[in-house]
Amino acid sequence: MNDLNYSYAYARSQPMTFVLIHGSWANAGFWNGTAAALRQMGHTVHAPEYAGHGPNANKDVTHADITKSVVDYILAHQLRDFVLVGHSFGGSVIQKVAEQVPDRIKRLVFWDAFVVNDGEALIDNVPPQAQKFFLELANNSKDFTITLPFSYFRDAFVNTADYHTAQQLYKLTISEPAKPLVEKLDLKKFFSLNIPKSYLYLTEDNVLPQNEAYSWHPHLSGRLGQFRLIKGHGDHFVPAYHQPAKLAQLIVAAGRD
Amino acid sequence: MNDLNYSYAYARSQPMTFVLIHGSWANAGFWNGTAAALRQMGHTVHAPEYAGHGPNANKDVTHADITKSVVDYILAHQLRDFVLVGHSFGGSVIQKVAEQVPDRIKRLVFWDAFVVNDGEALIDNVPPQAQKFFLELANNSKDFTITLPFSYFRDAFVNTADYHTAQQLYKLTISEPAKPLVEKLDLKKFFSLNIPKSYLYLTEDNVLPQNEAYSWHPHLSGRLGQFRLIKGHGDHFVPAYHQPAKLAQLIVAAGRD
Amino acid sequence: MNDLNYSYAYARSQPMTFVLIHGSWANAGFWNGTAAALRQMGHTVHAPEYAGHGPNANKDVTHADITKSVVDYILAHQLRDFVLVGHSFGGSVIQKVAEQVPDRIKRLVFWDAFVVNDGEALIDNVPPQAQKFFLELANNSKDFTITLPFSYFRDAFVNTADYHTAQQLYKLTISEPAKPLVEKLDLKKFFSLNIPKSYLYLTEDNVLPQNEAYSWHPHLSGRLGQFRLIKGHGDHFVPAYHQPAKLAQLIVAAGRD
Repeated sequence: MNDLNYSYAYARSQPMTFVLIHGSWANAGFWNGTAAALRQMGHTVHAPEYAGHGPNANKDVTHADITKSVVDYILAHQLRDFVLVGHSFGGSVIQKVAEQVPDRIKRLVFWDAFVVNDGEALIDNVPPQAQKFFLELANNSKDFTITLPFSYFRDAFVNTADYHTAQQLYKLTISEPAKPLVEKLDLKKFFSLNIPKSYLYLTEDNVLPQNEAYSWHPHLSGRLGQFRLIKGHGDHFVPAYHQPAKLAQLIVAAGRD
Repeated sequence: MNDLNYSYAYARSQPMTFVLIHGSWANAGFWNGTAAALRQMGHTVHAPEYAGHGPNANKDVTHADITKSVVDYILAHQLRDFVLVGHSFGGSVIQKVAEQVPDRIKRLVFWDAFVVNDGEALIDNVPPQAQKFFLELANNSKDFTITLPFSYFRDAFVNTADYHTAQQLYKLTISEPAKPLVEKLDLKKFFSLNIPKSYLYLTEDNVLPQNEAYSWHPHLSGRLGQFRLIKGHGDHFVPAYHQPAKLAQLIVAAGRD
Repeated sequence: MNDLNYSYAYARSQPMTFVLIHGSWANAGFWNGTAAALRQMGHTVHAPEYAGHGPNANKDVTHADITKSVVDYILAHQLRDFVLVGHSFGGSVIQKVAEQVPDRIKRLVFWDAFVVNDGEALIDNVPPQAQKFFLELANNSKDFTITLPFSYFRDAFVNTADYHTAQQLYKLTISEPAKPLVEKLDLKKFFSLNIPKSYLYLTEDNVLPQNEAYSWHPHLSGRLGQFRLIKGHGDHFVPAYHQPAKLAQLIVAAGRD
């Protein structure tokens, strides 16, 4: 009966192992603050880089290459009983990783992340006008990558930030390989798996429209069937960089037993 | 022009009388903390037990038996000018109680509660897969009751709790008579009543999917026509047990003139 | 990596110029507290009164008259590079103003505001029963104006307030000219403009149903195409009067570069 016992600010749990999978226009460094905050709470954290991302990466990669990077990392580090967290595009990655190493995963956490239907491409899940926008950017690039314009990034990805913060975070973005976003994915096995699932939804994230047709939640989250819902405040990119302690609490609340 | 004047934390009102109707898998003890908090704020509180619930209850009951328990209590205690609050399944109970004693009720407060359409059963308002799940549990029981599995309860009912709290609250749940959930209800009169109505929605309550087809709000709330909306944070069961003072403030904000 | 850097409570920006356009049942005095708070933060604020509103106003006005009041004010004061904010009905006004002086406007901010489609009237965007209610009130008045009944205002406009505050705010409401609400509006040009746009959504605002068919957000906001989303707590009228400092922070977060 103590009000203080109930709060994400505590998010108590036994020590856990987290594997954190970033999204598009980011590298594994996206997780630096969050990983530090989780470790300070007593948890073990892995934030593997994947194909097409990281310093001097070859951008000519497939979705399967990306999945392989993560699976290889998990096997090489002999990871078991971990919570696998995917952000944004990373949702589609943890879907495919879960198909390959289901028995090693304790729980899947989708944080404002794509849950792609069997046979779809990730880009099938964004509105037509955004599809057109992204494909034009990719087709006009030399290497079929997408570089976000600042004005779009500022209002869609870091809407809660001040201008100075928006500029700083924009400098950290990278050009994103477009092929993994447009490939159709076989996800039959994913939707037959019985791994417990959570969806972490930050209510100011407007990268996808917050309507029934496209929203992170309840639209994409609803594809998980039964799942644990955790909500917090924040947009798509700012919390990882400027509220890592809060984000870590939310990830623990989503991932714990 | 004083910021402090506007806040649920004050939720000022004249002393009121509340009648609190719990939901499924719970007893009247569900309200202990909230009732104490409301009384401390100067209000009078009744939390009647109803048929099929409470110690040594006969579980072979109908929805009409449950309604009768509450109406009998109201008449026996000569209650008038009270705010009638229903949580979850209790929403369907206060609909039927309102039909029988409309002139005694000052306002109806639905807290993440069912608002059943005329001719429907409560279970018609949950997704097909959940219907199937509940009916199988009932049919596999000795007495047509539903006992929630822990894994389902933990993610759906107490999603914001830590594991220890989830276990404690699970121990308080009871097997729920299924008949009142599957009976078709005549609610013609309810939808003709002119009693003021409020809907209290806790934004982390994911017992019903938070989409247009099934959500507590705006889907079920929308059936009330004009109503006062009050929102707070919390899931389906934790606030009553671990944030009773906050829940009491929200109930006062929903129930006051 | 400092949590404090990210917060609407700071809402840092260079000094800006705001032009604030109120909604129905209000006068320019609606903005008094918010304007004072914005000025204290270093910004320049204009809150022009428009036709049909203000002391001794002639209530026989058209939507074009209202737009003209604001455009005339902007031209007379030689305003440029300003953020134009519309609340509620004021959304339709800033749509029409933007058509006439697009080059002077830095950004449009819609705060729980109508975004009317080309060829529609504002009233086409409220549910049928509310349309009927408003039109009956107008037709039963001497001068085709709408005076809100207290019970409706209390639950729909100031749902978060206590009764005393609700009564105080009700006394400030005025009868609203109905003609501008029912006139069909030509908005072809608006939807071709490239002015940056923000939508500020207060999550307890239930003047429009919070569903896919009628909501401020994501329904009406979605008509803006790409926009910056800012959210806060509050209902339709209370924040302007009782949380002006918080509202000012949200408006800055919506309006800044």
